[in-house]
Amino acid sequence: MTKIIVDVYGGDYAPKEILDGCVAALQEESELSLVLFGKENEIKDYFNTLNDVKIQERIEIVEAPEVISNEEAPTEAVRRRPDSSLVKSMRRLKEDDSCEGFISAGSTGAVLVGATLIAGRIRGINRPALAPLLPTVTGKQVILIDCGANIECKDINLLQFAQMGKAYALCNGVENPRIGLLSNGAEDHKGTTLNQEAFKLLKEDKSLNFLGNCEARDILSGNYDVVVSDGFNGNIALKSAEGTANAVFSLLKEGIMKGGLRAKLGYLMLKPVFKELKHKVDYNENGGACFLGVNKVIVKAHGASKAKSIKAALLQCFKLIKSDVVGKIKEGISVEE
Amino acid sequence: MTKIIVDVYGGDYAPKEILDGCVAALQEESELSLVLFGKENEIKDYFNTLNDVKIQERIEIVEAPEVISNEEAPTEAVRRRPDSSLVKSMRRLKEDDSCEGFISAGSTGAVLVGATLIAGRIRGINRPALAPLLPTVTGKQVILIDCGANIECKDINLLQFAQMGKAYALCNGVENPRIGLLSNGAEDHKGTTLNQEAFKLLKEDKSLNFLGNCEARDILSGNYDVVVSDGFNGNIALKSAEGTANAVFSLLKEGIMKGGLRAKLGYLMLKPVFKELKHKVDYNENGGACFLGVNKVIVKAHGASKAKSIKAALLQCFKLIKSDVVGKIKEGISVEE
Repeated sequence: MTKIIVDVYGGDYAPKEILDGCVAALQEESELSLVLFGKENEIKDYFNTLNDVKIQERIEIVEAPEVISNEEAPTEAVRRRPDSSLVKSMRRLKEDDSCEGFISAGSTGAVLVGATLIAGRIRGINRPALAPLLPTVTGKQVILIDCGANIECKDINLLQFAQMGKAYALCNGVENPRIGLLSNGAEDHKGTTLNQEAFKLLKEDKSLNFLGNCEARDILSGNYDVVVSDGFNGNIALKSAEGTANAVFSLLKEGIMKGGLRAKLGYLMLKPVFKELKHKVDYNENGGACFLGVNKVIVKAHGASKAKSIKAALLQCFKLIKSDVVGKIKEGISVEE
Repeated sequence: MTKIIVDVYGGDYAPKEILDGCVAALQEESELSLVLFGKENEIKDYFNTLNDVKIQERIEIVEAPEVISNEEAPTEAVRRRPDSSLVKSMRRLKEDDSCEGFISAGSTGAVLVGATLIAGRIRGINRPALAPLLPTVTGKQVILIDCGANIECKDINLLQFAQMGKAYALCNGVENPRIGLLSNGAEDHKGTTLNQEAFKLLKEDKSLNFLGNCEARDILSGNYDVVVSDGFNGNIALKSAEGTANAVFSLLKEGIMKGGLRAKLGYLMLKPVFKELKHKVDYNENGGACFLGVNKVIVKAHGASKAKSIKAALLQCFKLIKSDVVGKIKEGISVEE
């Protein structure tokens, strides 16, 4: 059995959709067991209504009624609220060797702070990083690391992001992952001072399949398996992509609404294509962003996650535990002298 | 008459598409006259074949056979090649008061360097900036400034970008332009040290309608008329948007191709909607990126510009001259003490 901790009260649709997602994951993966942190009575009621003995045998419920909200300053909240579901989860994760992973759809900041301060960093990793999996035009996925955990970085951080991203890609079955450094042009000399210094370190590390600078235009091209960035730029790239996909769909919808009967008929005929496309583009359906560089496997699901995304996040966490992402990171990192 | 200089040999489709675009703009705007820099004989042949006396009266051709390519290092190329069409154009722009604008589809770097070193900055502007107009979901446009001219910036630069962006928006008929600062979250405290310092300056300038931080997800939301950024992040945001729009269209096309007869019929019925959407999303069709902060009006058209984009860039340049964007920038800037 692989045991994963779930923060049941994090996210916009907690606890119902979170619990539905847990059940779906337990049904799909028989080797999975869960420790659910939240309001014990409510969670018990949910499972009593469900009345499935086999599922119930694979869950443990821990009372932790307090929730850290998105509005709270993460570091302060983590320090001041020892009874919150997040802090209690993290303590259990640190202390109980049988618990190997954690997922939450709650405050990203609080998850990152809690994981770093309580569960702890991997020895030698200066800055853990947030890494979502994005779809590409070729159908393969690309890992964008870091997407917001570290706003200001040093060159060694970017090197470690590349090494952690590589470990993650290996766990996803990618051989010899192709690595790019996010920059304002593909040429070697492009970028800020930080970029140029990181470029040198990436080039020097012969264990990496470093392809050079990657323009933001090419993140989704399928030409890279890992794109490395500081957290500020990674966040800009990720959210600009998200906003643009939304804008294209919204303009398309508007065009169809205004296009009369012909457009509406066309839409009906293309509905399966659109559905498939939305599914491909919506990276949340593929799980969550992995927080790499801490001692356990931590997956941050989107705040708006419904059952489907929670299930995907749990299965992703399970897979990363099984493929030993933490061990692979430990093997591959350069430690600052 | 308003006189604009054209770099006829810049861009992937030069000179034919550039010249076709010039003719289209001259036909549409009777108050426009052009000075064409390039290979005199070839340009003369083009107009002799065209054989339109009225058009010919409004053009002047200047021999400048050398072209600076995208592969050359801009600063060196501008210094070493006094006979290139770009350097000759810039010198004429500086020396001849009757020439008020310039357009090129050539090397962006060379245009920026040439404009700054030769045509000259507006007094008080530390860093001119590149500002494309992007479409939004509401149909209004948003100015993203800077998109790549200044990779590393100070807070005062970002303040001036906001002031120049405001002047540009006013010229486009936007009243009291809403200004956002690109950051990794909408909350006031988000962003790098630079961002936080720029935030203070923007807040203090009471002449600006500053709405606060703008997440990259909201650039195309229509909630902002001007989004301010350093050139590195602006470039990442712009190109990530471009790459995502391309990826969505490419996946959609693939879905239609694989979707059998039903999907193909649906596509045919939705063709006008798709065409309209592509037109809306393709910001190059709206002209080019304006290079703000220099003494004349400079529009950089996309390297892949065809006649339509060149015409749009010329009409945009014409409009900005007529609405006195340079004067408006001079009025609105804060000068570093």
